[in-house]
Amino acid sequence: MNEIRAASALDEPDRGLFLASFVAGNDGPWRIESVSPVIGDSLPKAAHLSIREADMTITGDASWVLRGTTSNGRYVNQAEQLRLLERQQGLGRARATRAALIPIRKTKAWWDLAQDERRKIFEEQSSHIAIGIEYLPAIARRLFHCRDLGGPFDFLTWFEYAPEHGVDFEMLVERLRSTREWTFVEREVDIRLIRE
Amino acid sequence: MNEIRAASALDEPDRGLFLASFVAGNDGPWRIESVSPVIGDSLPKAAHLSIREADMTITGDASWVLRGTTSNGRYVNQAEQLRLLERQQGLGRARATRAALIPIRKTKAWWDLAQDERRKIFEEQSSHIAIGIEYLPAIARRLFHCRDLGGPFDFLTWFEYAPEHGVDFEMLVERLRSTREWTFVEREVDIRLIRE
Repeated sequence: MNEIRAASALDEPDRGLFLASFVAGNDGPWRIESVSPVIGDSLPKAAHLSIREADMTITGDASWVLRGTTSNGRYVNQAEQLRLLERQQGLGRARATRAALIPIRKTKAWWDLAQDERRKIFEEQSSHIAIGIEYLPAIARRLFHCRDLGGPFDFLTWFEYAPEHGVDFEMLVERLRSTREWTFVEREVDIRLIRE
Repeated sequence: MNEIRAASALDEPDRGLFLASFVAGNDGPWRIESVSPVIGDSLPKAAHLSIREADMTITGDASWVLRGTTSNGRYVNQAEQLRLLERQQGLGRARATRAALIPIRKTKAWWDLAQDERRKIFEEQSSHIAIGIEYLPAIARRLFHCRDLGGPFDFLTWFEYAPEHGVDFEMLVERLRSTREWTFVEREVDIRLIRE
């Protein structure tokens, strides 16, 4: 009996979490425009990306696969959560034909910090949430957690925006990368995509 | 190419996380004394439990397998973290021949709360950390996260203690179960074990 079968034999309810596989290969609705290392090693180049609900069999010609799951927020407080819900729109808007997938891994020093220390750096010092809110609803964003899944990254962030917001998106990532929080990033790859 | 092979092909460093499989079946160093449902459905009875580093093949005669990973703390602040480090001793002490494995799942209402709301219920209202510290070092404890892994529980907590601290352990779980935090628990199973 393998572990996946063992778990499903326990008859779990649907938990509402979306376990996504980002599959880079020869096909998929998103054309990969560039794969750029920002900090540390890059990822192999590939032509297209598809996003699939995980636990499907990934076959044949994948260049790489990154998995992550939606989860509860780790830092957002109640007032911030309300502001986010108020301003954000969903993914998949017809005009949002540009996307970025940004996998990130943080240092051991970051993860060894207590919750209040991480929150302080994340928001009080780096304004991570506040900066993101400024660009809503133009730049939509969804965070997938993968640290507990054991892969090479801690998070995969997926952004979607219309072509006319490309400059705003560059500003957003520039501002985040200049924060104190980012001094704890030890690997970051920036993958840009166009929906065909 | 499957996802596990894909991830390892990315040549990730060791992340220092311990992905554990709790395997119930016919053998293992821990004899299962009882399996009791506290809230919601129980788990099947089994004779023994072994704890293995995951991604091993679990074969044949397992009755059930629960997986979880050590991870960063979600609520502990810096002062609490220091107090915990100061007072706790490791697992595996020779005298600690009693154990409990307590898998827990919390409600959607809990996970929909923002970080500051969850922290307030967890500690300011329920003293979860403070109660745990009172019983250190006698009752050793290790938390494994499994919500992001997609199984039927959110956490697996493993406790170890010497037989003479059995009464203290009953007090500890009673006190936690009477907190406001526990009104958000929708499934809990209490598995007691003896090391042979």
